[in-house]
Amino acid sequence: MPNGADLLCDTLLLNDVDVCFANPGTSEMHFVAALDRKLDMRCVLGLFEGVVTGAADGYARMTGKPAATLLHTGPGLANALANMHNARRANTPMVNVVGDHASYHLPFDAPLTSDIEGLARPMSRFVRRIAGADDVATATAEAIAEAQRPPGGVTTLILPADAAWTDPTVYRPVKADLRAPAAPDASRVAAAAAALRAEGSATVLLLSGDALQPGALDHAFAIAAATGAEVLGQQANARLERGTGRHPLERVPYVVDIAVKRFAKVRQVILVGAAAPVAFFAYPGKPSSILPPDCAVTTLAAPEDDTRAALAQLADTLGVAPAPASAPEPMADLPTGAITPLSLAIAVGRALPDNAILCDESVTSGRDLFAHTHGAAPHTHLQLTGGAIGEGLPLAVGAAVACPDRKVFALQADGSAMYTNQALWTMARENLDVVVILLSNRRYAILQGELAAVGAGTPGRNAQRMLDLDQPAIDWVSLARGMGVDGARVETTEALADKLAYATAQKGPFLIEVMI
Amino acid sequence: MPNGADLLCDTLLLNDVDVCFANPGTSEMHFVAALDRKLDMRCVLGLFEGVVTGAADGYARMTGKPAATLLHTGPGLANALANMHNARRANTPMVNVVGDHASYHLPFDAPLTSDIEGLARPMSRFVRRIAGADDVATATAEAIAEAQRPPGGVTTLILPADAAWTDPTVYRPVKADLRAPAAPDASRVAAAAAALRAEGSATVLLLSGDALQPGALDHAFAIAAATGAEVLGQQANARLERGTGRHPLERVPYVVDIAVKRFAKVRQVILVGAAAPVAFFAYPGKPSSILPPDCAVTTLAAPEDDTRAALAQLADTLGVAPAPASAPEPMADLPTGAITPLSLAIAVGRALPDNAILCDESVTSGRDLFAHTHGAAPHTHLQLTGGAIGEGLPLAVGAAVACPDRKVFALQADGSAMYTNQALWTMARENLDVVVILLSNRRYAILQGELAAVGAGTPGRNAQRMLDLDQPAIDWVSLARGMGVDGARVETTEALADKLAYATAQKGPFLIEVMI
Repeated sequence: MPNGADLLCDTLLLNDVDVCFANPGTSEMHFVAALDRKLDMRCVLGLFEGVVTGAADGYARMTGKPAATLLHTGPGLANALANMHNARRANTPMVNVVGDHASYHLPFDAPLTSDIEGLARPMSRFVRRIAGADDVATATAEAIAEAQRPPGGVTTLILPADAAWTDPTVYRPVKADLRAPAAPDASRVAAAAAALRAEGSATVLLLSGDALQPGALDHAFAIAAATGAEVLGQQANARLERGTGRHPLERVPYVVDIAVKRFAKVRQVILVGAAAPVAFFAYPGKPSSILPPDCAVTTLAAPEDDTRAALAQLADTLGVAPAPASAPEPMADLPTGAITPLSLAIAVGRALPDNAILCDESVTSGRDLFAHTHGAAPHTHLQLTGGAIGEGLPLAVGAAVACPDRKVFALQADGSAMYTNQALWTMARENLDVVVILLSNRRYAILQGELAAVGAGTPGRNAQRMLDLDQPAIDWVSLARGMGVDGARVETTEALADKLAYATAQKGPFLIEVMI
Repeated sequence: MPNGADLLCDTLLLNDVDVCFANPGTSEMHFVAALDRKLDMRCVLGLFEGVVTGAADGYARMTGKPAATLLHTGPGLANALANMHNARRANTPMVNVVGDHASYHLPFDAPLTSDIEGLARPMSRFVRRIAGADDVATATAEAIAEAQRPPGGVTTLILPADAAWTDPTVYRPVKADLRAPAAPDASRVAAAAAALRAEGSATVLLLSGDALQPGALDHAFAIAAATGAEVLGQQANARLERGTGRHPLERVPYVVDIAVKRFAKVRQVILVGAAAPVAFFAYPGKPSSILPPDCAVTTLAAPEDDTRAALAQLADTLGVAPAPASAPEPMADLPTGAITPLSLAIAVGRALPDNAILCDESVTSGRDLFAHTHGAAPHTHLQLTGGAIGEGLPLAVGAAVACPDRKVFALQADGSAMYTNQALWTMARENLDVVVILLSNRRYAILQGELAAVGAGTPGRNAQRMLDLDQPAIDWVSLARGMGVDGARVETTEALADKLAYATAQKGPFLIEVMI
């Protein structure tokens, strides 16, 4: 007789959740046994939980639907939280299933007992402990619905072992009650149109979420061209379509001073699925808001609204037809010699195959990438959204599982890569088509810049030993081979281009350690 | 002028907290700059936060005093939680310092903002957000006192960036108000003595914490010999002294059925710093409590009491003199051929140098270790206490930092090692004297056993792919070399013994991949 764990699996499958990124433990064995009986469920093992949730994030960004994850009690959830944080900031749909002790066992406070709800809540929009086998189908359907409630979010289901191993009274998977995004608000559309028509109003249309999809950008750029406004993307976004044939979107700069300067003359900002720009960190004497004090902020559409329809209605109200992207500047010629942020950007932009996915956790070394790759082949750009480093490689895992026919480039800083280096093993295990471009500057370069910014002077021994990653230098080719991923080290832009061509031509994971 | 971050450092140093395991980020740059000005503070970098807190746990278990940790906002804390969980279960004193945004920046909900208190509470006995630069010294002293309040515990201080960068009105580090453990309760001593004198009472003295220290065991074993009681250690303990000259302590078995059988005839249990034994996990039809229903449980001393004094008073009441350990059975001769759990235990026991520290996260492969190493050289045994795998290598880092003159053996299962493999880099960075004995069985063996136990039959594709770690096999020698640690693979017990001798004779980290 199928049990609660079977019912959980079948409810996931009924709702088209058919990939489970997993790192199971003892308390989840009935769930594992149930997964083993479901041939339609693809189970992908991660050797650390941050890989699991980061992959679920990448998968959902590419498919638009949630993956499930399988995590082992409070500590397993804890290890998964940092990338749940990033997913939360990306509005990614995700259904985490956390196994717990049998409910009657909890009062005994066995060693692995912890407050799972307490751990889950800060990174989840929905947390639900399954009350028993008869609650499995309802609870799971609720989690799936909440995960997909616009604009999407992270949900956590707690599955007590006895709810998994008990047979439900009635075995009936439940269909999730999915909601569409809210239709555009006519008064907001009218207000935005009026704002855009106002004389002398230096206006920015600030976009994120679905408002960044190509069709929506056709409207946004047409509106901007007709009214003199500018289009900007939020600093961090879950997904962008870039390259030839797409609008050359600029984003809000990361560095506070540059961002403040960028908005200095802006008088009104119209938000379309975006938040008003704020400083990533606070600094003494610098503002928290990026906007000038007298800048007006209005919302055309919130993230949970139908941002694409709102842009279409706004264009219609203004009598503006959608504008396709103009031809971008072609990619620059490949530089030679030592690898710099600029030569890296050009080499990567030139190497990107058509319809690739670029997972970008390049931190400091990749800051030139965006501006210099508008002329690359059309590709999808996935970015770190929550600032919790260690998501780049897991994102690439998830994107490659989601899109087996597309090449994935993972542009990855070394310090960040170490947090979830176990993702390399999953790439090898699943033979995922990922080129890891590992940027080996052997330091937390962003922190060295920040330390200088706080006026600390020349770093002494303690600071150096917290910000340098040499002594020993990490040998990424050896580390990757240890996990079954072949690789090579490059020291010149030409060698980088050669290895990118080699890795692109073959199928499966390959790591290029880029000395930068 | 020194700021709040300086005052935090100086308050730590005034209270003899002079090691900081760190993984800093931007919001902690003023704290990093302050640490850089404190030459008495040793800063040890971990490339992942689980390394940081696991090392702080190992350090405190060996020194009896807390280390500080430095963590970056909510996601950095999240990555640290699993080993905070283990430390919590070990009653380890620890002072975590979590940097957060400047207080005025929090309402702007910048990308890295999260509910840090909510994340910290499940794994901390004390959580305190520093209210400003003038609150730094008091808050830090409180955290240090709470960390050391018997029997010790995990504390978390949240340091807003503006509290760090602002100058306090008065610069005065505060001394922590430390408390001694509670003196023995005379009525409990009398009750325990009466229980032990009762006729026909099959009694177990169940010990943990300081009651396991050699002097306390001299009392406990003498009491047992005089009254016919048995001495047992809790299943998991923070620290044990073992080998020649120490009492051959047996622990409560991990496997439920074996543990239940072990206690089947026991009629009373006297707890000395221990908890009544419970099943690590619940299983259908098996009990949560290990004890027979009619078994009486009395407490001689709780973990927060002076358990050593309580045992001494109990011995005194019973008129029993402390008994030194009798000579153990000598170590068995080294077997030859393929490496088995038994041959592993003998090889490791024979190789342990005098006064070594053995960090044991061997999971299934190490289950024979305990029974077969009573005759090893005297050594300290550190164990996983909370069931959150991925602590063995970090524990070894912390133990080696605490005791630079003692050799550390890290007996480490492969699946568990992957969670915090970054600890290898810190071993290389600090040239820590650690021999990593990496048990490469290429599977989650414990889970394969558990899956069979739930009656799932032969694992199919989904189960196999969640429980096997082959495809690809991890090459631990390559992985370790990637992080600067030299190593070798062994396939026979003789080769293992050779490499153990080689690694023991040299100084610095070395990894032996043991094919088992």
